Amino acid sequence: MRFFSDNAAPVHPAVLDAIAAANVIDTAYDGDAWSRRLDGAFSDLFGTAVRVLWVPTGTSANCLALTVLCPPHGGIVCHRDAHINVDEAGAPEFYTHGAKLLLGEGPGAKLTPEAIAAVIDPIRKDVHQVQPHAISITNATEYGLAYSPEEVAAIGDLARTRGLGLHMDGARFANAVAHLGRAPAEVTWRAGVDALSFGFVKNGGMGAEALVFFRPDLADPILYRRKRAGLLFSKGRFLAAQLLAMLEGDLWLANARAANAGAALLAQAAGDRLVSPVEANEVFLRVSAQEAASLRALGFDFYDWGADEARLVVSWNQTEAEIAPLATAIGAL
Amino acid sequence: MRFFSDNAAPVHPAVLDAIAAANVIDTAYDGDAWSRRLDGAFSDLFGTAVRVLWVPTGTSANCLALTVLCPPHGGIVCHRDAHINVDEAGAPEFYTHGAKLLLGEGPGAKLTPEAIAAVIDPIRKDVHQVQPHAISITNATEYGLAYSPEEVAAIGDLARTRGLGLHMDGARFANAVAHLGRAPAEVTWRAGVDALSFGFVKNGGMGAEALVFFRPDLADPILYRRKRAGLLFSKGRFLAAQLLAMLEGDLWLANARAANAGAALLAQAAGDRLVSPVEANEVFLRVSAQEAASLRALGFDFYDWGADEARLVVSWNQTEAEIAPLATAIGAL
Amino acid sequence: MRFFSDNAAPVHPAVLDAIAAANVIDTAYDGDAWSRRLDGAFSDLFGTAVRVLWVPTGTSANCLALTVLCPPHGGIVCHRDAHINVDEAGAPEFYTHGAKLLLGEGPGAKLTPEAIAAVIDPIRKDVHQVQPHAISITNATEYGLAYSPEEVAAIGDLARTRGLGLHMDGARFANAVAHLGRAPAEVTWRAGVDALSFGFVKNGGMGAEALVFFRPDLADPILYRRKRAGLLFSKGRFLAAQLLAMLEGDLWLANARAANAGAALLAQAAGDRLVSPVEANEVFLRVSAQEAASLRALGFDFYDWGADEARLVVSWNQTEAEIAPLATAIGAL
Amino acid sequence: MRFFSDNAAPVHPAVLDAIAAANVIDTAYDGDAWSRRLDGAFSDLFGTAVRVLWVPTGTSANCLALTVLCPPHGGIVCHRDAHINVDEAGAPEFYTHGAKLLLGEGPGAKLTPEAIAAVIDPIRKDVHQVQPHAISITNATEYGLAYSPEEVAAIGDLARTRGLGLHMDGARFANAVAHLGRAPAEVTWRAGVDALSFGFVKNGGMGAEALVFFRPDLADPILYRRKRAGLLFSKGRFLAAQLLAMLEGDLWLANARAANAGAALLAQAAGDRLVSPVEANEVFLRVSAQEAASLRALGFDFYDWGADEARLVVSWNQTEAEIAPLATAIGAL
Repeated sequence: MRFFSDNAAPVHPAVLDAIAAANVIDTAYDGDAWSRRLDGAFSDLFGTAVRVLWVPTGTSANCLALTVLCPPHGGIVCHRDAHINVDEAGAPEFYTHGAKLLLGEGPGAKLTPEAIAAVIDPIRKDVHQVQPHAISITNATEYGLAYSPEEVAAIGDLARTRGLGLHMDGARFANAVAHLGRAPAEVTWRAGVDALSFGFVKNGGMGAEALVFFRPDLADPILYRRKRAGLLFSKGRFLAAQLLAMLEGDLWLANARAANAGAALLAQAAGDRLVSPVEANEVFLRVSAQEAASLRALGFDFYDWGADEARLVVSWNQTEAEIAPLATAIGAL
Repeated sequence: MRFFSDNAAPVHPAVLDAIAAANVIDTAYDGDAWSRRLDGAFSDLFGTAVRVLWVPTGTSANCLALTVLCPPHGGIVCHRDAHINVDEAGAPEFYTHGAKLLLGEGPGAKLTPEAIAAVIDPIRKDVHQVQPHAISITNATEYGLAYSPEEVAAIGDLARTRGLGLHMDGARFANAVAHLGRAPAEVTWRAGVDALSFGFVKNGGMGAEALVFFRPDLADPILYRRKRAGLLFSKGRFLAAQLLAMLEGDLWLANARAANAGAALLAQAAGDRLVSPVEANEVFLRVSAQEAASLRALGFDFYDWGADEARLVVSWNQTEAEIAPLATAIGAL
Repeated sequence: MRFFSDNAAPVHPAVLDAIAAANVIDTAYDGDAWSRRLDGAFSDLFGTAVRVLWVPTGTSANCLALTVLCPPHGGIVCHRDAHINVDEAGAPEFYTHGAKLLLGEGPGAKLTPEAIAAVIDPIRKDVHQVQPHAISITNATEYGLAYSPEEVAAIGDLARTRGLGLHMDGARFANAVAHLGRAPAEVTWRAGVDALSFGFVKNGGMGAEALVFFRPDLADPILYRRKRAGLLFSKGRFLAAQLLAMLEGDLWLANARAANAGAALLAQAAGDRLVSPVEANEVFLRVSAQEAASLRALGFDFYDWGADEARLVVSWNQTEAEIAPLATAIGAL
Repeated sequence: MRFFSDNAAPVHPAVLDAIAAANVIDTAYDGDAWSRRLDGAFSDLFGTAVRVLWVPTGTSANCLALTVLCPPHGGIVCHRDAHINVDEAGAPEFYTHGAKLLLGEGPGAKLTPEAIAAVIDPIRKDVHQVQPHAISITNATEYGLAYSPEEVAAIGDLARTRGLGLHMDGARFANAVAHLGRAPAEVTWRAGVDALSFGFVKNGGMGAEALVFFRPDLADPILYRRKRAGLLFSKGRFLAAQLLAMLEGDLWLANARAANAGAALLAQAAGDRLVSPVEANEVFLRVSAQEAASLRALGFDFYDWGADEARLVVSWNQTEAEIAPLATAIGAL
């Protein structure tokens, strides 16, 4: 049984159905009926007027967002463990034309206003040093922690005070919202977020993420930059249809709840082995190489995470019946 | 009836079926079973060892290819009407970090060795002028002309002599091959082509193109650049599956032949109105504004192409029965 | 006697003296007494509050200016023969991160509102095409023509109407002003120019040009971009001192008048051979290869300019006595 | 008395004389007699065939060198305190088109093979992470430590083993060589250095540094990139003349020795207050805010360096008589 990554999971049947239903002739690019419904659908979800662009990957969503929040000569504060810093192959530098990531610290890949201030306060206000223009946080974090609305708002306040844009990498935004039990609005625009990469692929989608702008004017240049990055699909309706299917009946939330519940099962079994609290669908636990081997011998696959740690990710489609044996095996270590 | 663009056409059922069949858990990114079959499948098709990367759009295929053929300070010779020059929103400049497109002339958006020499011979060999490093040709061209193997080889010879890379934008490569009746190898690597953007989306695919390297080592840096451009889908198997479905039983060729045949019907009806020979699935014809309006009044949609011209594109799925009324209407103008 | 280029000419003694006088310890970069006087000195010259940065070359002045007038995904209208298009090795694309030069036509490398409209009007207002964001004109042009204040103002009107920035490449701005006999203000900010590359190196300077912003806020990001481009000299006082020396007693104008007068001598001798009117210090004349050889046999050096044309450039320091023999020789052809 | 920075110091009279002597007409750009002598003069100095380009600043020298050692999608290992990381405003990212600086640790801003391995060994060899392509070290370091030939060679071995290029930022290379008492060759190419930014401006020059390539073929693309960066001075002879004057009679070495000797005087007085050994012309010492104020009250100027530290820099022209009072004052704290 695979607990490698939610990236490897299958696509939800409703998404496949939506793709099939979109297989009719319509206007190319994003002029089709599905794409034109996105702004409305997401505005309803967030309770405010937003602009939304489909993009195929989380990396492209993150990096397009950053281009509008930071000039090429500026800097973006993020956590040292942020996906944009360690897992996007320099895509932020490519898209922003060389903006610099300014790295903050904190347990669980989580930033705080203090951690951010520790990064930007020592920067001399002269032309020799890259000045901060934006902050990017990941919710849920790369270690599966959820930022509460209050935590985001504290960072949002700092951003506004310092004149910085605020981006949220929401590759697992659904899992964070499911955990928090709060409205999507609370953890985003009401807390000062300017742009959100709203992930669906890890959560049952096939190849479409939503780049959501809470300051609608920010979307205008991104329309050009999306095309310029080779991301404007000629048959964009197939991406829009995926997103709409995920919003339909709050499928995104149901899937995330299911994955979170599975992770909670594992967390319960892991007890003291947990590296950090489990607030999404990822479980990081301390295991020796021998213990890891013994789990694998039972047929469970997962990533080692540095020395003596393992990462287990539960996907939207894994059932309690499938997960329980791993929980049992962990408990028996 | 829409003759706007093959971009608007639906997806072939076999492609949708292949997507559905790929909906099982597998390794993320391009480590899955489908992606790993691509090199072999395309090597078979081309009769030589090639490396193939899936990408979602033609623009990204073109631009990734150019990054490996031209440094940021170099130039790429292409036709003034080339898609990379007029319809990609500056994507080549983005991907290549500012390489310069050096524009050649010629009827039907077709380059010749003479036209290319006319661009590069006047360039002083000094550091003040951007030096050519690559040539990009489009087959079939933006005006629906096919380069024969001999025509490509003449350009390939020039490229080799001058030390230039040679890229082929094959957004409608299938249509060109279908028209030429020659092996894909003849019009590509045997004629000196280094990299091919092999288009499938306009020809029945959903959102996957093949970037084919005939010099396999060229693919290595592109693996990084694809990720860095935000193009590495986490569920890449759904792209690879599309490409494999299109190769299966030469579906790509059947679809192209069907579209070409439809265009031939229109060409026959157009007679002297043709702006250029019809060698693919596009028909450019001279019509007055009044004539265009009369066709539209009959329910036919298409693009005006400058003043007094119209572009009609036939898609893989349009039947003779659907096309015949337009042919009749054109003949009756 | 060399008539190759004003780039090859020596430095005016007053400039060397100013450099020597600046050879005392002072604050590094642009915090020194000389650099801090620039804004004031140029504001006096232009009769309005300007911000001025020294840069070492005309190319860097031009390209820094363009970065603030055009985003990476935008386009800049310039003449096909503009220095930024043909002689800067892709520097505009480097500095702007890939903005596209949109090329206009017109005799003598001169743009008109009509020529600019002919470039931008056909651009579809969609994301597939690079949209214009700025215009760059060269005064005097690359063929030695001066734009009058009225001609600039007509372009300035167009720029404002279309929402475009307006840059003036003034590598030979002094020569243009000397020819026009009008105030520098009239041909720049009063006519709608946002930023001027004010050249001094060709006119008796050593290695300093002035980048002048008539909209002072535009200078702020350029301070960072200048450093980021490796152009912030640690001993910047030596650049500022050059500029101040050139402004002192209107040395810039005297030098330009001298060079223009020399060119006028040649123009008079050239008569019907002139390719275009001589309105600065460059003379383009029609000569056969044999005639060019005969002039060279007499000891005169110059560039061939395409076939059957020659370019003669007179420098600030060439005296009538030195120029007269060439005028005689031309007259005797 | 100012101990802020060697950047603020005056220019050596021999350099000014050389500039004056170069004030004759000659070929523009780098075709002049002075520029053409550079390769030979530096080849003599280094005892091997090198290619040398003049550039105006250390930042431009560093960044141009990096463009040829690292592709846009690659990474460059440097110390966290390296000038290229903290004081060049993102210029490396600009010039390399977004390559990533991979930051190592070590006292005194000095890297070791172990420190470098600690950076690159954890990098997964997959396309999600930026792969190292080059190493950049600073000699003398930003904290005034000199790398010995043996230390450089150890890093050079690592670079060769891992397939990485090796750049040396030699803004104070002269000071390092003066301290080491070893031949320039030993600490550069014989130790595996591919490219050296050989600084002269801090050491008595006005505005010219030498970018030295020990692998001569590396220089070819840099000729284009220098122009493309707006760094190709039209009157390049004034830069070349500065460099030649500094080489003449080993003026560069004499100046560095003088500055180092001055720093040694201060170091001797500082005793236990020294933060690190003084191996060049910079002295970092522990002083309380009150102590710093007392030194300033005596007329000595310098930078605070973080909390409770001060940086004193001695310039080539400061005499023992000028420095002694500060040494006395430090000793009396």
